[in-house]
Amino acid sequence: MPNAVELSAPAPFRQVEAPAPVVAIVGATGAVGVELLACLAARGFPLGGLRLLASARSAGRTLDFAGRAVAVDELTEESFRGVDIALFSAGSDISRRYAAAAVKAGAIVIDNSSAFRVDPDVPLVVPEVNAAALAGHRGIVANPNCVAAIATVALAPLHRARPIRRLAAATYQAASGAGTAAMEELRASTAAWLHGEPFEPTVLPHPYAFNLFSHNAAVDPETGYNGEELKVIAETRRLLDAADLPVGITCVRVPVLRAHAMALTMTFDEPLSPDEARRLLTAAPGLRVVDDRAANHFPMPSEASGRDEVLVGRIRTDLGDPSGRSLCLFVAGDQLLKGAALNAVQIAELLLRR
Amino acid sequence: MPNAVELSAPAPFRQVEAPAPVVAIVGATGAVGVELLACLAARGFPLGGLRLLASARSAGRTLDFAGRAVAVDELTEESFRGVDIALFSAGSDISRRYAAAAVKAGAIVIDNSSAFRVDPDVPLVVPEVNAAALAGHRGIVANPNCVAAIATVALAPLHRARPIRRLAAATYQAASGAGTAAMEELRASTAAWLHGEPFEPTVLPHPYAFNLFSHNAAVDPETGYNGEELKVIAETRRLLDAADLPVGITCVRVPVLRAHAMALTMTFDEPLSPDEARRLLTAAPGLRVVDDRAANHFPMPSEASGRDEVLVGRIRTDLGDPSGRSLCLFVAGDQLLKGAALNAVQIAELLLRR
Repeated sequence: MPNAVELSAPAPFRQVEAPAPVVAIVGATGAVGVELLACLAARGFPLGGLRLLASARSAGRTLDFAGRAVAVDELTEESFRGVDIALFSAGSDISRRYAAAAVKAGAIVIDNSSAFRVDPDVPLVVPEVNAAALAGHRGIVANPNCVAAIATVALAPLHRARPIRRLAAATYQAASGAGTAAMEELRASTAAWLHGEPFEPTVLPHPYAFNLFSHNAAVDPETGYNGEELKVIAETRRLLDAADLPVGITCVRVPVLRAHAMALTMTFDEPLSPDEARRLLTAAPGLRVVDDRAANHFPMPSEASGRDEVLVGRIRTDLGDPSGRSLCLFVAGDQLLKGAALNAVQIAELLLRR
Repeated sequence: MPNAVELSAPAPFRQVEAPAPVVAIVGATGAVGVELLACLAARGFPLGGLRLLASARSAGRTLDFAGRAVAVDELTEESFRGVDIALFSAGSDISRRYAAAAVKAGAIVIDNSSAFRVDPDVPLVVPEVNAAALAGHRGIVANPNCVAAIATVALAPLHRARPIRRLAAATYQAASGAGTAAMEELRASTAAWLHGEPFEPTVLPHPYAFNLFSHNAAVDPETGYNGEELKVIAETRRLLDAADLPVGITCVRVPVLRAHAMALTMTFDEPLSPDEARRLLTAAPGLRVVDDRAANHFPMPSEASGRDEVLVGRIRTDLGDPSGRSLCLFVAGDQLLKGAALNAVQIAELLLRR
């Protein structure tokens, strides 16, 4: 029987009127799973219980949650009895296999994989962008791809003021998007490089130390776009409710550990001045404007890492569009937080409020 | 008196009919200076003599050239007596101060700084792109900015077949563009990070270990574009002989040592198919097409480093342009070679042939 920790007062959690939900984390030992735990604790998420689930390989380990050791159980179809919210972050195959069992057991699934992101019956939600979409859920809510989540936090306030008609993006993506093993491969291969030692990559397909490469998702032989790029295109359209938005994108993996960055260029019907954009972005939730031209201080992964807000800067009119209707931004956001765990917990918070 | 090494037979250099030129390198001890020496040796450049010049601080050092130790002299206005070709790579101030003296002494200056790149009396040359422009020189030839040089090698064959009407670029620039000290700062700060030790950057304005940041060139307060971006725009237009080409660009410094990469999107009047583009790029000089969709193998800094050719791949129609008239490329080239030293030596070779 799953080893659910029953959390009763005096607990370090915010007390609420309604019974606090029992939350399960599927993939608790992964890069995102660990951050989900940290987000729940840091945000004082009201917990009636916490169940940590992972593959048989990880079962029996314990993870720290707000100073308590919580045992990790093996994920089975029986794992969801009594669970109110199931946060899935163990890849698409696991989500496809177990989400229905969780829903059947009465849980609402918030899925961090790409399994349901383009399913019209499953809302894809970034709370700052399209919280209203959550209302239509039928037991599963999809958490977007990290690039789409981070980008749309910056795009939405502009899109609301003046619809975006075209979007171009080039990404600078961190190792964390490929999991903890990729982060460790970046560290280990860089250490080997600095010591003049050989290193054979096993997680990512190319050398990573002081190197970068086109995103490792499989490339569609027809269009030449890789799976990551096609995800970002489809999900950005859904999140911005702009089904036909033309999106061009190049996704690149850079030797950074956990925060993504991206250069975005958006085209409007009429020019949007950098000052007006700055005003909109400054007033928007989940964003922090970092745009100090004099100090050459703009969004950087080092300052986005471990931070809830998405950083946005380099706000300027695109010199590449002679019509003056295009605007450029540079954005950085923590891939494991807004790009994954934080957004999932924010969705759970929205569910509680409803 | 400058310490010119007179090189006579039996020398490891190609023998030519005309008297071989005496070559001076200004900034011989810098990152590009060292590569200039290596390029001259590797290409068997015919040398009647070699003079290495640097600041008083570096004078007295010796550098290896094809197995010989060559002394470094202090740069003065008298350094250019008897010099036929002076390769300058010591920054704009030095070029502005000493180029006239070199020309007055009878040398042709090939200048790797930005001092003369937009001077209409000074041709800006990438041999694969606009060799004919060299004919108009009046003693000084400008070697382009590294991004402009690398990008235009890939852009020119397409532009010749079908004029580019608009260009968008996002760069992934290596430490080498900021000199050997920046390369060392990347290495040292990364080693410190891996050992959990603090590191205070002194060369670049931001932490560099596993981080990236908007290019460190000063930002124009009016447009919000930094000096690097404005250089690339102006120089790309000159090199492609497209004075009004709209160019949008975001320049970013990434934790890579010596090869730049860039995502390029170009718009034509009529669609250019990826197959046709691949054919043109495959046939073009100075390029190597690396575009294996099945193996997810595309241009990478690790494979561009130390290599003369610019790598080009990810050749695909831009999904962000609904007219189908835009094409994307991903390019990687050695910043110290095609982005600097190699291009300068190629210009010198062109001068010899004339």
